Amino acid sequence: MALLESTHRRKNPLTGRWVLVSPHRNNRPWLGATEAVNESVLPKHDESCPLCPGNTRANGDSNPDYKYTHVFKNDFGALTPNESEQTQSLASDSDLFIADEASGECRVICFSPEHNKTLPELEHDALHEVVKTWKDNYTELAQHYECVQVFENKGEIMGCSQPHPHGQVWAHSHLSTEIEAEDTQQLAYYKKHGSAMLADYVQKEQADKTRVVFENEHWLVVVPFWAAWPFETLLVTKDNIQNFSQLNDAQTDALAQALKVLTTKYDNVFNCSFPYSMGWHNAPANRGSDEQHWRLHAHFYPPLLRSATVKKHMVGYEMLGESQRDLSAETAASILQAASTTHYKKTAG
Amino acid sequence: MALLESTHRRKNPLTGRWVLVSPHRNNRPWLGATEAVNESVLPKHDESCPLCPGNTRANGDSNPDYKYTHVFKNDFGALTPNESEQTQSLASDSDLFIADEASGECRVICFSPEHNKTLPELEHDALHEVVKTWKDNYTELAQHYECVQVFENKGEIMGCSQPHPHGQVWAHSHLSTEIEAEDTQQLAYYKKHGSAMLADYVQKEQADKTRVVFENEHWLVVVPFWAAWPFETLLVTKDNIQNFSQLNDAQTDALAQALKVLTTKYDNVFNCSFPYSMGWHNAPANRGSDEQHWRLHAHFYPPLLRSATVKKHMVGYEMLGESQRDLSAETAASILQAASTTHYKKTAG
Ligand SMILES: O=P(O)(O)O[C@H]1O[C@H](CO)[C@@H](O)[C@H](O)[C@H]1O
Ligand SMILES: O=P(O)(O)O[C@H]1O[C@H](CO)[C@@H](O)[C@H](O)[C@H]1O
Repeated sequence: MALLESTHRRKNPLTGRWVLVSPHRNNRPWLGATEAVNESVLPKHDESCPLCPGNTRANGDSNPDYKYTHVFKNDFGALTPNESEQTQSLASDSDLFIADEASGECRVICFSPEHNKTLPELEHDALHEVVKTWKDNYTELAQHYECVQVFENKGEIMGCSQPHPHGQVWAHSHLSTEIEAEDTQQLAYYKKHGSAMLADYVQKEQADKTRVVFENEHWLVVVPFWAAWPFETLLVTKDNIQNFSQLNDAQTDALAQALKVLTTKYDNVFNCSFPYSMGWHNAPANRGSDEQHWRLHAHFYPPLLRSATVKKHMVGYEMLGESQRDLSAETAASILQAASTTHYKKTAG
Repeated sequence: MALLESTHRRKNPLTGRWVLVSPHRNNRPWLGATEAVNESVLPKHDESCPLCPGNTRANGDSNPDYKYTHVFKNDFGALTPNESEQTQSLASDSDLFIADEASGECRVICFSPEHNKTLPELEHDALHEVVKTWKDNYTELAQHYECVQVFENKGEIMGCSQPHPHGQVWAHSHLSTEIEAEDTQQLAYYKKHGSAMLADYVQKEQADKTRVVFENEHWLVVVPFWAAWPFETLLVTKDNIQNFSQLNDAQTDALAQALKVLTTKYDNVFNCSFPYSMGWHNAPANRGSDEQHWRLHAHFYPPLLRSATVKKHMVGYEMLGESQRDLSAETAASILQAASTTHYKKTAG
C-alpha cells in the first residue's frame, strides 16, 4: 500500500496541524545524543522527597500518612488565583502586543505513597484511586475554572523533577491554545456531520483494528492515524461523556485497567521505565451547553524512538515547519500490540 | 508595571498561539534533569566525520577540499523527489483520515571546513559565504518548490547528530503547518491594516528598545513580545524583502554581522556553546503575487534556561495546553543586551 511506504503527510483533525511521515528513513544511522537512563534502584521511602508520606515540604507543610493518593497545592505553581476582582486585558496594541491576565491553581497529585512505584506497577485498586482522584479534583476545580488540565510528566527526560510517582493539575479561567484548537475543530465537525468527531473515529478504528492497541467495554487505546511522536497513543472513551465528572464506577474501573495495560506495554517496548507526557482533554466547563461535540480523551506523548536511550528530537524542521516521524503509526501500533501485558520487571525475576 | 510581575498570557500574532508567562516562578528550586555538556576539545579535522573536506561519506561520495561552505544531498533525507507524475491525495475518509503525498529534497550545508568551529567563531567573510550559500540554495530550490526551509540544529541536546558546523535545507511542494499559519496570519493583518505585520512590529520595537538585542541598517534582533523559549529571538529584515533571493550585497553583509553578534551573545550568556534550533521563514514561492504581507525572518529557539546544563522542558502542560515560560521576554532581552559581543573563548585566554 503506497500510503505506508512513500513519504506523505497526515492531518490531525483535532488540531488542524499536519505531520510529515518518512517511513523510508527508519534505517538512517544514529550518531547523535543518547540519554542517560536512570534505572537506579530507588528506596520505597526517601527522607528527602517532598512527596513521600510524613515528610515536610519546603513551605513547612507535612504530608499525611496517605494510603493511595495525596493532593497538595504546588508550592511553585505557574498559576496563582487572581487577587483583583476582574480580569484585565493588558494589551497595549491590539494586534501586535496582545496580553491578558491569567489566574488559576496548580496542584500536585501523588499517585502512591511508595517512592519507587510507577503507574504500571500499581495494583488495580490503587489505579482506581488515581482515576478517582483525577475525577474529584476535576469536578471541584471545574466549578471555578473553565479549563482544568490533568497531566503527568514521567521520566527525567520529560523534565520531571521528582521520581516519586505523581501528576499535576493546572486549572485556569481561559482556554489554553490546544483546548481551544480541539474545541473549534470538534465543533466544526459536529456541525457538519451531526456526530462527534471522536465518536466516529472510535468506530472506524474499532472496525479497522490496524492501529488499536487495547480496548475494553468503555475505552479504546489507539495509535492515532495522525500520531506525531513515535509511540504516541490516544486513550478515548467509547461512551457519550465529555469530562471526568461524568465517570461512573464501571468507567472508572475500566479506565484503571486500560492505564495498567497501556503503561505496562510501554515499559515492555524497550524494557525500561518508558518516559512520556500524558494528559487529559476535557470539554470546557461552565459553558451551559451539553458539549456534545466533545469526547473525553487523553494523549500520551512518549519521546523514545529506537531504544531506552535514543529519543525522537522535535527540533529544527519540526519547530519551524511541522512534526516529522520516521516509523509509521501502523508500525508503532504493531509493536505495541505485540508487547506483553506482563511487566518486564515481573518476568525478569 | 503589572504586566511584568503577575501571571499573564501573550499572543503570538504570527501563529495565533498563546504563551503562559509566570515571572514569579523564576526562583523555584531545580531538582530535575541536567544535560551533559560536551565541551570536549574537537580536532580541526576529524577522519571519521562525513562533513570534513576530503572525507568519504557512507554512500561512497567524497567531499571536495572546500574553503568556505559545501552543500550535498542528505543521504537520509526525510523528503525525496516525487517519481510519479502527479500528486495524489491518499485520503481514505475525507474528514478523519486525511493524507497527502509529499515530495521534496533535503540538503546538508557545511558552514566551514573546520570541524571544531561554530557560527560565532567564523570570520566575517566566512559568515558572508554562509548567507550567500543559503541564498543560492533557496533561489535554486524555490524554482521547483513552494516551501524552502533553511535551518540549523545546534548542539547534541537539539538532536544534532554531527558536531561539524552545518545546517540543512528541506524543500517541498506543500506549505508546512508553521508557514501556512504565518502566511494566514500575516495576510489577515495586511488586509486589515494595509501594512505588513512584521514591518509594523519592527518599527514599534525599534521605538521602544526594551526587547531589542541588536540592530544594524538592515536587520533587527529582538526577543519577541510573545517569545516562548527562554532566550528566543526573532531576526527580521528592516527592508521590504520577502525571501532570500532578494538579498543584495549590503543586506548579506549586514546579516553576516547580525549573526555574528547574536550567536556570540548567546554563547556568552552561560559561557558555553549555546544550543538552539534556528531557521528561516521565507514567503511561499511561485504564487505569482508579490507577497507584500510577508517579511523575511528567522526564529532562534534556544532551550537553555538557567545554566549550560539546565534547559526549559516544553512537556506536559506545554504539549497539552500551551507554551509556558518563567523568565519574562523583557528580562531575557536585558540579559542578552548585557552579554558581551566578544566571544568568551577569546577573552578567556
Ligand atoms: O538530520 P539530523 O540532524 O540527523 O536530525 C535532526 O534534525 C531533523 C530535522 O530537524 C530531525 O527530524 C531529527 O529528529 C533530528 O535528530
Ligand atoms: O512542575 P515540574 O514537574 O517541576 O516541571 C515540569 O512540568 C511543567 C509542566 O509541564 C513544565 O512547565 C516544566 O518545564 C517541567 O520541568
